[in-house]
Amino acid sequence: MLGSTHGTLTTDSRRARVIACGEQRPGPAVHGRAADADELDVSGRPLYADVPDLDRFFRPESVAVIGASDTEGRPNTGITRQLLDWAGRVGARVHPVHPTRPSVFGISCVPSVADLPEQVDLAVLLVADPLPVIEELAEAKVKFAVAFASGFAETGEEGAAAQTRLTAAVRRSGLRLLGPNTNLNAFERFREDLDGPAIALITQSGHQGRPVFAAQELGIRLSHWAPTGNEADLETADFISYFAELPEVGAIACYVEGLKDGRAFLLAADRAARRGVPVVAVKVGRTEAGARTAASHTGKLTGADDVVDAALRQYGVIRVDGLDELQDTAALLARARAPRADGVVVYSISGGTGAHVADLAAGLGLKLPVLSEARQAELHQWIPEYLSVANPVDNGGHPVGDWRGRKIIDSILADPEVGVLICPITGPFPPLSDRLVQDLVAAAEATDKLVCVVWGSPVGTEAAYREVLLGSSRVATFRTVGNCLTAVRAYLDHHRFVSGYRSPFDEAPRTPSPSYRKALALMRPGQQLSEHAAKQLLRAYGIRVPREQLVTSAAAAVRAAGLVGYPVVMKASGGQIAHKTELGLVKIGLTSASQVRDAYRDLTDIARYEGVALDGVLVCQMVERGVEMVVGVSHDDLFGPTVTVGLGGVLVEVLHDAAVRVPPFGEDQARDMLAELRGRALLDGVRGRPPADLDALVEVVLRVQRMALELGDRLAELDINPLMVLEQGQGAVALDALAVCR
Amino acid sequence: MLGSTHGTLTTDSRRARVIACGEQRPGPAVHGRAADADELDVSGRPLYADVPDLDRFFRPESVAVIGASDTEGRPNTGITRQLLDWAGRVGARVHPVHPTRPSVFGISCVPSVADLPEQVDLAVLLVADPLPVIEELAEAKVKFAVAFASGFAETGEEGAAAQTRLTAAVRRSGLRLLGPNTNLNAFERFREDLDGPAIALITQSGHQGRPVFAAQELGIRLSHWAPTGNEADLETADFISYFAELPEVGAIACYVEGLKDGRAFLLAADRAARRGVPVVAVKVGRTEAGARTAASHTGKLTGADDVVDAALRQYGVIRVDGLDELQDTAALLARARAPRADGVVVYSISGGTGAHVADLAAGLGLKLPVLSEARQAELHQWIPEYLSVANPVDNGGHPVGDWRGRKIIDSILADPEVGVLICPITGPFPPLSDRLVQDLVAAAEATDKLVCVVWGSPVGTEAAYREVLLGSSRVATFRTVGNCLTAVRAYLDHHRFVSGYRSPFDEAPRTPSPSYRKALALMRPGQQLSEHAAKQLLRAYGIRVPREQLVTSAAAAVRAAGLVGYPVVMKASGGQIAHKTELGLVKIGLTSASQVRDAYRDLTDIARYEGVALDGVLVCQMVERGVEMVVGVSHDDLFGPTVTVGLGGVLVEVLHDAAVRVPPFGEDQARDMLAELRGRALLDGVRGRPPADLDALVEVVLRVQRMALELGDRLAELDINPLMVLEQGQGAVALDALAVCR
Repeated sequence: MLGSTHGTLTTDSRRARVIACGEQRPGPAVHGRAADADELDVSGRPLYADVPDLDRFFRPESVAVIGASDTEGRPNTGITRQLLDWAGRVGARVHPVHPTRPSVFGISCVPSVADLPEQVDLAVLLVADPLPVIEELAEAKVKFAVAFASGFAETGEEGAAAQTRLTAAVRRSGLRLLGPNTNLNAFERFREDLDGPAIALITQSGHQGRPVFAAQELGIRLSHWAPTGNEADLETADFISYFAELPEVGAIACYVEGLKDGRAFLLAADRAARRGVPVVAVKVGRTEAGARTAASHTGKLTGADDVVDAALRQYGVIRVDGLDELQDTAALLARARAPRADGVVVYSISGGTGAHVADLAAGLGLKLPVLSEARQAELHQWIPEYLSVANPVDNGGHPVGDWRGRKIIDSILADPEVGVLICPITGPFPPLSDRLVQDLVAAAEATDKLVCVVWGSPVGTEAAYREVLLGSSRVATFRTVGNCLTAVRAYLDHHRFVSGYRSPFDEAPRTPSPSYRKALALMRPGQQLSEHAAKQLLRAYGIRVPREQLVTSAAAAVRAAGLVGYPVVMKASGGQIAHKTELGLVKIGLTSASQVRDAYRDLTDIARYEGVALDGVLVCQMVERGVEMVVGVSHDDLFGPTVTVGLGGVLVEVLHDAAVRVPPFGEDQARDMLAELRGRALLDGVRGRPPADLDALVEVVLRVQRMALELGDRLAELDINPLMVLEQGQGAVALDALAVCR
Repeated sequence: MLGSTHGTLTTDSRRARVIACGEQRPGPAVHGRAADADELDVSGRPLYADVPDLDRFFRPESVAVIGASDTEGRPNTGITRQLLDWAGRVGARVHPVHPTRPSVFGISCVPSVADLPEQVDLAVLLVADPLPVIEELAEAKVKFAVAFASGFAETGEEGAAAQTRLTAAVRRSGLRLLGPNTNLNAFERFREDLDGPAIALITQSGHQGRPVFAAQELGIRLSHWAPTGNEADLETADFISYFAELPEVGAIACYVEGLKDGRAFLLAADRAARRGVPVVAVKVGRTEAGARTAASHTGKLTGADDVVDAALRQYGVIRVDGLDELQDTAALLARARAPRADGVVVYSISGGTGAHVADLAAGLGLKLPVLSEARQAELHQWIPEYLSVANPVDNGGHPVGDWRGRKIIDSILADPEVGVLICPITGPFPPLSDRLVQDLVAAAEATDKLVCVVWGSPVGTEAAYREVLLGSSRVATFRTVGNCLTAVRAYLDHHRFVSGYRSPFDEAPRTPSPSYRKALALMRPGQQLSEHAAKQLLRAYGIRVPREQLVTSAAAAVRAAGLVGYPVVMKASGGQIAHKTELGLVKIGLTSASQVRDAYRDLTDIARYEGVALDGVLVCQMVERGVEMVVGVSHDDLFGPTVTVGLGGVLVEVLHDAAVRVPPFGEDQARDMLAELRGRALLDGVRGRPPADLDALVEVVLRVQRMALELGDRLAELDINPLMVLEQGQGAVALDALAVCR
């Protein structure tokens, strides 16, 4: 059985504030959480996840069931029965609460919460309206409650209002609530005969957790299931933080429709990344249709999907599409040890299978090293010479039927370049495949490298699959090549990610920079700044702008041109000018005083004609020869300010070739943004152009991030377009900028 | 049980030439096929598929087994035994052939092929070297042979030479050969208790067909399996053409590593498209690694993958990645009737499931219509008001447990906008899901619309799945949402494709156009044409070029400028000039005689300095204000000439934003090429520019195609870069062109 994969990471447990539940949390509420001032970043948002102590929620010593029933035919009766079964298994005392019944299923009832004979850990609320009960529970110092009732945010405005009242009552009470609109999934019967690292499961829709739960029948251990429902209080983030602390949890699998609080989710993902615990998530909302449906289901925002996608990647959360991928990927990540190498070998009894799987693997970016001459020579002791063993390794079939089979597998696994062996068994042929499967299982038990088997038969009732492969927790077994490769890719990516992970929250600014005060003085609430003012804002943050002067007469323009140096660019300047170029409000390449005078007259004439109010004309240094980029700040409903960088001109306008990140992020992420751009080759130099100054571009992105964090909601929108990135060592200059204040 | 899906298509059976096998084929060999002159296009390639009559191959009356054995432990003994079993099942007479044995398994042997007691349909060659036997078989008028021996093209040069000799012998003989390097798959035991349209399977690697074969155990009918191996004679294309003619075949599933003959494959795919028979294919070679491995496996070219991909799409071949997708997609396409509407409804007992599946479905481009008010009102008779039934339809669970379940399904299926119902059953809950499954099966039996069920449990041993769902050939059952949606998308795409399909071969030019003679006069074998000559080639095909004159003196340049009209562009012209702009050999925007004179002097000076041989200087009309495109011709190893169109400048250079097609193709495909471009919005007009003249662009693409077809191998390469596409109604002008003759 495997050990935890996370032992090597140094984590800083001081960072996690474990909140004792059942207590009133002190201090000012920030995003619904208490926080000390030194734990807030410059934008006033928390820097570290709260980690609720949910031990007593999952393993209570005593449980009150409010609304318990044993009347046949009532829904609550079935629930009560299941709760009693579960309480019996986990050894919890149960106290049914009912105003009139003397007993339920033979257990004495108390008439109200106030009459409970002890301070209970968990109250299960089977009542239609949980709100009135919350205060009573608080009085009785109950630690946790679960509310099954539906009819809240998922039903529309009225329900949302009821949920807001419920949330407020819970917050006042000091107890922690799961639900409403949830179910019994947390209290299911988990298999206890499986050992090794487990999957912990979090689902916003209980039904969507069923396949991962059922995977226990295939030998995949599951330790917890949190069906979070509407998340009036406890949310996905709380469970991620909690599960990441548990030694038995090898991976966290999530089904997420919407996020209650983007920041809380990221802090939880950061917590898991620090601990090296993989988080695999299905996140609904790739399309408008999905987002709409999900919103109407649990009443949460799905977020702009490109921002969600970036945020998940920033914290190493592995996003998958299907529940089958969720299960397969989480199972692999939970159980496999950290890779010893990132090379993947495909091993098969058929050259066709090898070719096919190698093609798909390479297409997913997996590294398939050509095995060394020495290794190939060794393999050819057992495999006929005419078969290729370079990788994929094709054994032609026969060698797996005898003693040679195990030798081949061991030899491949002994190769220092090999971290993963994938053996696709396309079709079972018992004389060969039964022995092959046994050898794979035995070899996997004897190595700490990853052995994956794809059982390609669609039937799936074969003994070699059911009994041998699924009976081993050392072999990762899949039903499709696609899911195997997706999981292997996630496995290698995860370990690469956590080994290089530095939490951006540790380095996030806590106090404003000297730039901040200068910037504040420039802000004009509710207004769009003029180009000149927007550029001053950039200058305040150390971003280079062209030499320029704002002038209000032709004579001043000529003087300014002399100062900034010919050739110059002249532009109309004012608070509300968009599409300057289209309107003819930009004149470039002016080389003489007379051209400057003419340009001044033209620009003011056009502005008058177009009804554009000017605060003057900008006379700017002309900057040519560089790569035009766009850098900007937007606001996301879920995550707050975001920073975008894209290639300028037609690439961003037509192809939307841009990358986004959610602050805070470090220099590594800023560089990754550039690597994501489809047209990134432009930055490396094409058509004989020199490479662009990437360092300067990265620096601008980071300064813009700082601006976004410090100005927060005050800065509704910022667009540097274009940022001219000059050749290496020459820097980058913001040629135009648009800033909108809130 | 379903009828064939292909009844409504009018196909032109005259087009398919059924070649009686076992006869010497007459006429000149074209790509290894006989063809009459009127069946060749202008490039000399066949226009219609040969359809070999393979009835006697799959259902022979008599079979000779050359090298039969019953000695225990010899590989041929097992094969002989399987052949005897199979012959018994299909009622074929078997004649073992062995030089010394009197009998094999109690059946009398003859010593040689010449001694066979009758003219046999099929000879199975179990000998290590099939070559010497071929002539004997021809003498004996054997119709078909299968060669199992390996060691041919898959092993390298020597093997490839042996295969070439084998191919030549087979071609002389008049018999048709399957293999070498193949196996017994064609003679497997197929389930005969399944009815309705079947899958016919073609695999180049026998092992890779196992999952589709095993799907018979899940109730999916399979009628044939052709394991084509090295394709020394019979190839994938032959089997596609043959299977497309068989009434019992509902879909053709292929596993293809490389193609022997690109044209033959396209003609076969065209044949299937005319007949409306879907072809689903895994085609290896998406990556370099895969291509290399596949080539070493069966010794075939995989082709440049973007060209292969385009060629498959041109003929409606559905490309999938995994064998699981191949099976699931082929099974659906084989069995489902043509859609009545393209609307998809997701129906589930959980809002979460509905949101998730709707999101993925929309992401794949499926249409999820919002159900009408009236339909929703009807559904709300059975489904509580607070649940959304707009689509996805969420029933909340309970209604499926009673009589309402069937009502709901029938109501959805009765909706005229609905062609497909998808019901994901994420987790089985027998009190609800057993009834749901029964209702779905019953409803599917009563409708001609497509009902898909996703059985999401990873366990797969549940009775509702094994017995009820798999027992119905009317319900399409899947194990993953991903495979279901991929298959549904393929199903709707296929029927849309075939309903609008016009074979490009029917319209392909058979005789050269008047342009051809003019073009031939311009060709210079082995040379790159000068820009001026390349433009004359374009003019010969009616493609507009700027007014321009080639001059050899400054005075002539000034006269030419007067004739073409100022402003002009001047360029150095010569046979070998690349990167003119970078070398400074282009001068634009010349507005006066003195500028023209200066430019002439500069260009000739630079050319002298750079050592560039000029045939003169081009004085050209200056064309601005349009969208720069690139149109070109390349040659593909598999498919011959290809036509490419892309967006010019940085988009094609950095982003490779181009679309490719294999001629012949019609105007519809030329328009599709433009739709494929990521930057296509540029053609519609951005930044206030008018829309570009798409018709003119399409016309240029078609004229370039004509040129590629008529000039064939003579034109090694053509690049129009840029083609300036002017605004709507103004045409398109080739500003520069590069042509290389072979």
